[in-house]
Amino acid sequence: MIARLSNLFVRTLREDPADAEVPSHRWLVRAGYIRRAAPGIYTWLPLGLKVLAKVERIVREEMDAIGAQEVRFPALLPREPYEATNRWTEYGPNLFRLKDRKGVDMLLGPTHEEMFTLLVKDLYGSYKDLPLSLYQIQTKYRDEARPRAGLLRGREFVMKDSYSFDMDAEGLQASYDAHRAAYIKIFDRLGLEYVIVKATSGAMGGSASEEFLVIADNGEDTFVRSPGGYAANVEAVTTLAPAPVDSSDAPAPYAVPTPGTPGCDELVELLNRDFPRAEGAWTTPETLKNILFTLRFPDGKTKPICVGLPGDREVDLKRLEASVAPAEIIPFGDEDFAKYPTLVKGFMGPDALGSASASKIEYLADPRLVAGSRWISGANRVDEHVIGLVVGRDFTPDGYLDVAEVREGDPAPDGSGPLTLARGIEMGHIFQLGKKYAEALGLKVLDANGKLVTVTMGSYGVGVSRAVAAVAENTCDDKGLAWPRALAPYDVHLIPAGKDESIYAAAEALASELSARGVEVLLDDRKASPGVKFTDAELLGMPTSVVLGRSLADGLVEVRDRASGERTDVPLAEAADRIVALVQGR
Amino acid sequence: MIARLSNLFVRTLREDPADAEVPSHRWLVRAGYIRRAAPGIYTWLPLGLKVLAKVERIVREEMDAIGAQEVRFPALLPREPYEATNRWTEYGPNLFRLKDRKGVDMLLGPTHEEMFTLLVKDLYGSYKDLPLSLYQIQTKYRDEARPRAGLLRGREFVMKDSYSFDMDAEGLQASYDAHRAAYIKIFDRLGLEYVIVKATSGAMGGSASEEFLVIADNGEDTFVRSPGGYAANVEAVTTLAPAPVDSSDAPAPYAVPTPGTPGCDELVELLNRDFPRAEGAWTTPETLKNILFTLRFPDGKTKPICVGLPGDREVDLKRLEASVAPAEIIPFGDEDFAKYPTLVKGFMGPDALGSASASKIEYLADPRLVAGSRWISGANRVDEHVIGLVVGRDFTPDGYLDVAEVREGDPAPDGSGPLTLARGIEMGHIFQLGKKYAEALGLKVLDANGKLVTVTMGSYGVGVSRAVAAVAENTCDDKGLAWPRALAPYDVHLIPAGKDESIYAAAEALASELSARGVEVLLDDRKASPGVKFTDAELLGMPTSVVLGRSLADGLVEVRDRASGERTDVPLAEAADRIVALVQGR
Repeated sequence: MIARLSNLFVRTLREDPADAEVPSHRWLVRAGYIRRAAPGIYTWLPLGLKVLAKVERIVREEMDAIGAQEVRFPALLPREPYEATNRWTEYGPNLFRLKDRKGVDMLLGPTHEEMFTLLVKDLYGSYKDLPLSLYQIQTKYRDEARPRAGLLRGREFVMKDSYSFDMDAEGLQASYDAHRAAYIKIFDRLGLEYVIVKATSGAMGGSASEEFLVIADNGEDTFVRSPGGYAANVEAVTTLAPAPVDSSDAPAPYAVPTPGTPGCDELVELLNRDFPRAEGAWTTPETLKNILFTLRFPDGKTKPICVGLPGDREVDLKRLEASVAPAEIIPFGDEDFAKYPTLVKGFMGPDALGSASASKIEYLADPRLVAGSRWISGANRVDEHVIGLVVGRDFTPDGYLDVAEVREGDPAPDGSGPLTLARGIEMGHIFQLGKKYAEALGLKVLDANGKLVTVTMGSYGVGVSRAVAAVAENTCDDKGLAWPRALAPYDVHLIPAGKDESIYAAAEALASELSARGVEVLLDDRKASPGVKFTDAELLGMPTSVVLGRSLADGLVEVRDRASGERTDVPLAEAADRIVALVQGR
Repeated sequence: MIARLSNLFVRTLREDPADAEVPSHRWLVRAGYIRRAAPGIYTWLPLGLKVLAKVERIVREEMDAIGAQEVRFPALLPREPYEATNRWTEYGPNLFRLKDRKGVDMLLGPTHEEMFTLLVKDLYGSYKDLPLSLYQIQTKYRDEARPRAGLLRGREFVMKDSYSFDMDAEGLQASYDAHRAAYIKIFDRLGLEYVIVKATSGAMGGSASEEFLVIADNGEDTFVRSPGGYAANVEAVTTLAPAPVDSSDAPAPYAVPTPGTPGCDELVELLNRDFPRAEGAWTTPETLKNILFTLRFPDGKTKPICVGLPGDREVDLKRLEASVAPAEIIPFGDEDFAKYPTLVKGFMGPDALGSASASKIEYLADPRLVAGSRWISGANRVDEHVIGLVVGRDFTPDGYLDVAEVREGDPAPDGSGPLTLARGIEMGHIFQLGKKYAEALGLKVLDANGKLVTVTMGSYGVGVSRAVAAVAENTCDDKGLAWPRALAPYDVHLIPAGKDESIYAAAEALASELSARGVEVLLDDRKASPGVKFTDAELLGMPTSVVLGRSLADGLVEVRDRASGERTDVPLAEAADRIVALVQGR
């Protein structure tokens, strides 16, 4: 197959799109692969659609290989199933909702757990029918608050979602493992640099989940790794709590004047100046920081909470968000403080907090606040702090909440060494859902003894359109796109560079021969300058290009490798063989 | 590839779905090809999705063959482009509208003229870029008032829509002809029985259009044909108007008492009894029937009209609807008549109608009301009619409206003989749009002289998901589906019929050999009775099945042709060759 640039529907752009925040977005638009139709909503132009189709094929092949069966659900869905699982409400403003002409509530599907569960319930009824894995490659909708980075976070996007149905946890584990292995094959074939990390399940529910993150500086997700192999996204990292401390002989807490020190660092400076300690300087990690938030639940109800954590740590809002989902978090403002006269802003102590206190605000502590640990805290009086508060003696948190920022060098929870932080793009997410959806929607089958058993489910997603951008992000450089062979819209880009008709004739002949041998050829048959053609070829990013120019007189063409920039002169007579070998990976 | 019924996600049903009105719907649901998710919204199960994919491939190949380039637009679209062409309003309640989280109006695309026009405007600017044809295979949405017949009239469906862009009418004609020829190839390959008929352009606008109708008794569309080759859908049929009559010496009209005869047939009976005519009996076609309607426009405004037509004809509401689109039509009720005291219901005459009359109601005549033709009409007095009213002398219509019912035997407008009526399913529609969308959205390019020229467009649609149902409708029988080879989910259905393990072993061996030779095999490996398996095989509808049963002892299998019912004993050793030959159409 030969495509000619003279009539291919593509227009390369010399200017970056105004809203381009990341390289993949910039290059995919400038190279004419995609075009914005509305915020977070893109049109696939011919080149982009070819890449998307290649991603889809890889995903389909690997799903078929594990025996998953392809179906396709509608995107426009009835409200009832999502009402039954409460996701109609929990999704909040992220869900596109609409009414049909009869006023019936409908939605654009953000993910299809409910529909798959109901379909299997509808058609299957016996343990003999299981295990079963179904999947679809389908268009999904989420009304993101901040659609960004082109295809990386869109409002309409293509996903592969699959769902497994098993009789028990052991079956689920097998289905989960099969999907995990298939995902490894998919991401390897896509040529992505990725890590598999422990993840939180968020609004999806279920017990265990892992994410496949493509390593990218522009990724939205932060993850941690340890030398010993621990890996988790930052929301899922658990803090290694110290062992409980025996503080039975600890002195009683005592208050000290600390004027003008609502901040922990200033406090510590003042303490070391005015109340120095024999055992060594006071340090910020010994201070206790209490941060208030309002949680707003999807049903509109609100509830205040206080997070208590060491003074040298901040609350990581993403970790907090993941912990309290589907509730939204709102920082406490002055008007909120005004409702709690027992609280002294900047000098709050844990005794004024907790559900047993006058404020009744639930007090949730960082795991480092182990029983017996000693803290310096606000005294609930302006310009005064208390030293030596002991957890379990002087105050007891209502519970624990592991939402402090994770830092480079923090210990991995499994003892596998210090953590390093990096960023990534979420490309896949696999969930052991368990019985949440099957229970909510009544999916039961008869077991071998004729007893009704609730089915155990898994759910597994790959961002198919996002993969196009992730691969672009992983491979592009400062000149444009640079596709791996498996995804390039065309295998080779032929560039007749010169005005001589014989050059064009040679290019046409080479194109015909390559096409006849199964190579997908992009031929720049335009009467443009070599400079324009070279620039476009680098921008468009086919893995190999062949320049037919001056040295054609000596029987030579130049083969260029887009990724490495390497250029090799090759006799024209051998060019086709050379390219076929490259395409076939020999 | 071998699929086994023991784990294929399919469940055949013995009962018709309650809402099944047509055979294709009944069988597609009962055979487990599709499943309803909401009214007019279906899920594709594995077998159905395979058929859909085969239709898509055929459509894609033929579109690529005429040089059309594939793109893919989002389904979720901004309001503005549809506002610019007024379709945001004109589509009325057929459009799914929604607001995003910011309150921005959006819609689910019913067809994409606006978006394609804007895309080409965005990227192209010169006559050198044209001609251009773009297409997509994509999910569309229309909130049908009466979704029915399964996939035949759904609210979410797959369409192939293409759009051509040319410099002038000649170019458009060439693009139109290319699409027309491609459509013929597509529908031939799908094995459909179809006709190409003249059609109205409706809300789409533009000058000329044709429909591809699949002949089916359950079709929603009525079309006419003549022996001489005229073909049109009933909305587009033009009435052969008689030549004008010279009535300069016609006598003046005169009133006669006609008590209790608001109906034309009763009137004629009375006239022949009380006022017989020498030249022969009075006939109903000589009487004039005046029917009032209110038109309601998408902006909510209304306007009454009166249609005058021969007394033996009814107004065809679909023809009227097509003529006044996008206005809705509402029959006149008593409360409407009450607003026009000059009108005498049942005895209305044209002198009381027309924009020049006291009623000011626009009077639109059937083409048979040629100048000089004479009519018997109500006298605008109860129980009285007027005989001998001459068009152009005694009354003059405000205009003409060709909306009377078309009857079997009516003459074709091109003189090619009497019309016959039949029903069909609209499978394709091709439009010469002209400049409507390009003008509304400002799509202009520079011509060779540097002058800006508005682009001329065509638009072309194929109902891809509908084709699955249309083929089923064309080929099914009273036992189930019967796919043509090009669309069957599997080439052959192997049926081990018996309990003997050797039968299953032989079936597995045959399946392996066929699969190795590129045949897609469905193997009924279930431990079910032969009767159940035979019934399911007929229901599922693979073109060929092979029964391995008792005669296997004699080295024979039975090859069954689903469409003809023909059964042939074939030596097992030759079975694979025979089936490969069948699949390859030899």
